[in-house]
Amino acid sequence: MNARTAGPVLVVGTGLLGASVGLALRAEGVDVLLADVSPTALDLAVDYGAGRLPAPGDEPALVVVAVPPDQIPETVARVLAHHPGALVTDVGSVKQQPLEALRALGADDSRYLGSHPLAGRERGGAISARADLFLARPWVLTPHERTTPAQVRVLEDLVLDLGATPVRLSPEEHDASVAVISHVPQLIASLMAARLVDAPSAAVGIAGQGLRDVTRIAASSPELWVQILGANADAVVPVLEAVGSDLAGLVEALRGQHRPGARRAVAEVLAAGNAGVSRLPGKHGQDARFASLVVLIDDRPGQLAALLTEIGEVGVNLEDLRLEHSPGAQIGIVEVAVLPEVRDRLERELTERGWRIAG
Amino acid sequence: MNARTAGPVLVVGTGLLGASVGLALRAEGVDVLLADVSPTALDLAVDYGAGRLPAPGDEPALVVVAVPPDQIPETVARVLAHHPGALVTDVGSVKQQPLEALRALGADDSRYLGSHPLAGRERGGAISARADLFLARPWVLTPHERTTPAQVRVLEDLVLDLGATPVRLSPEEHDASVAVISHVPQLIASLMAARLVDAPSAAVGIAGQGLRDVTRIAASSPELWVQILGANADAVVPVLEAVGSDLAGLVEALRGQHRPGARRAVAEVLAAGNAGVSRLPGKHGQDARFASLVVLIDDRPGQLAALLTEIGEVGVNLEDLRLEHSPGAQIGIVEVAVLPEVRDRLERELTERGWRIAG
Repeated sequence: MNARTAGPVLVVGTGLLGASVGLALRAEGVDVLLADVSPTALDLAVDYGAGRLPAPGDEPALVVVAVPPDQIPETVARVLAHHPGALVTDVGSVKQQPLEALRALGADDSRYLGSHPLAGRERGGAISARADLFLARPWVLTPHERTTPAQVRVLEDLVLDLGATPVRLSPEEHDASVAVISHVPQLIASLMAARLVDAPSAAVGIAGQGLRDVTRIAASSPELWVQILGANADAVVPVLEAVGSDLAGLVEALRGQHRPGARRAVAEVLAAGNAGVSRLPGKHGQDARFASLVVLIDDRPGQLAALLTEIGEVGVNLEDLRLEHSPGAQIGIVEVAVLPEVRDRLERELTERGWRIAG
Repeated sequence: MNARTAGPVLVVGTGLLGASVGLALRAEGVDVLLADVSPTALDLAVDYGAGRLPAPGDEPALVVVAVPPDQIPETVARVLAHHPGALVTDVGSVKQQPLEALRALGADDSRYLGSHPLAGRERGGAISARADLFLARPWVLTPHERTTPAQVRVLEDLVLDLGATPVRLSPEEHDASVAVISHVPQLIASLMAARLVDAPSAAVGIAGQGLRDVTRIAASSPELWVQILGANADAVVPVLEAVGSDLAGLVEALRGQHRPGARRAVAEVLAAGNAGVSRLPGKHGQDARFASLVVLIDDRPGQLAALLTEIGEVGVNLEDLRLEHSPGAQIGIVEVAVLPEVRDRLERELTERGWRIAG
């Protein structure tokens, strides 16, 4: 059995995630019903092609609840009651507390299977929705004691239809995971960026890529994050306390740096950072599996394309690329990451073709 | 008077920075003398073209000390004594403590003018040196009470010869600035990355670009950073304590989140993060001056080049570009930042040309 064959899918909440689910399912030919407390948002999502308004007699086999975090338990409970034959999931960033809240409301949790797509954008709303939003992203399913294997298969089919990669974790594992890989990093970035509010202009003026990277996600929406952090406080607090404890140790070591062992304490935090970052998957600047090459380009249309065209002509695949604009100069710095065995050949070929290599 | 006309420049220490200074000055036709405590490193730098060995009678007008941070005061003092007619600078990341240490050694500080190029690479050594290393980067000069305007001009000429942008700050201003824009961000990234050492594989496996950005610089060398942080502890500690204090407030608010005002306390940290990150100059993903467009490409040679060629054909300049590879998929996600007024046109043109736009 597959979500596609068992009847329409109802999406409750037509913001970015809900409307994207609708668009992606429509693209697969699935009949999608839409609901939203805001008639304006609902009309927009229908116009956008994310699905249709339910007609009398429509009965969904599967319901995706995509409302803001603090409305999830009540909405899921209501949906379970209104659609007694449907499997209901949600797409919230936290899983344990909403499940408990749902049970406290007396809902039939045997038909609720929470999930969490690790996808999103800075901008919200149906207007930002895309059928490709979930493509190749992890989508965590969080089965609980009353979930059946058949229900997991139905939801995994849906996730695969959306182009995402299903991952199974318990609600507790999920919440502990996102605390360390998403929620605490968000707070750490915000705490660092907050130090810039009163920093002298001279300091901000000489800042470089390192600071920009550390603080990039500090631009996220406070309203959304207050809800997420509130719902996952139990998992976030221990991680944040561990950071605070390490930080206090650092302050003590830097203050008493001439005491025996103080420098070692600082070095140990830095070494632990080395070890931690090396565990991250995927492609990034410091990835030990790749070698990097820094090329200088003029900051005008077509230059980067010309460089990448020549890299393509040489037959080298880019594993990663970073673009940096230099303060006070019309010059762009492009760092490309490639497999180590082709790096020197690429440098040679690009130099021969007249590119300025800066490292 | 100009560094170029007054006699040779002596570079003491032929690692990454020293050898890069030598290469850049040689490219400008300046006579460069090299010195290093390691005969092997010195030979390598000479072979590399960064300069020549001093001959009897050579007398430098300007000396650039580019040794590891903890050897700067003694080396500068020795150089001042050996070359009584020369202006001496260094390229260390911290300026106040080395100046005090120099004075404590009884050196003639009237001929010492510290400086700090905000440039570097992950890899050290002359073998990584580049004549372009300082191109368009800020290079801070830190005049003190005994520095003359003529000395500042000589060093600014050198900095301009190296392609960098001179910036003047007092030693105290410099150290306070780098504490907040470089040293504390380094520690924050390390503290966050250290939390990943014992994180479950499941958590690390669903990590995304946000965490990668926050922790990227945590891959830096502990040996170097222990020296830098030790020398700038006085400026680093207050910033780190302010972060620690905000962090403790966050922990308290998240623990007692149902108390009045607790959510507001969390929201205020997030809002301060918004405000801080908006002060950063330059081009980055969340820059409010630019609009972004997300395009999906196949992960094979030439695809990114083809995309950027078409963007160039449309006549649109890229302000920034981020490349992300999706977990489990042979698909690359390219986020391009452009001026807001051209964004919609670019989306239309790329869609017409068959590119998959994901946002």
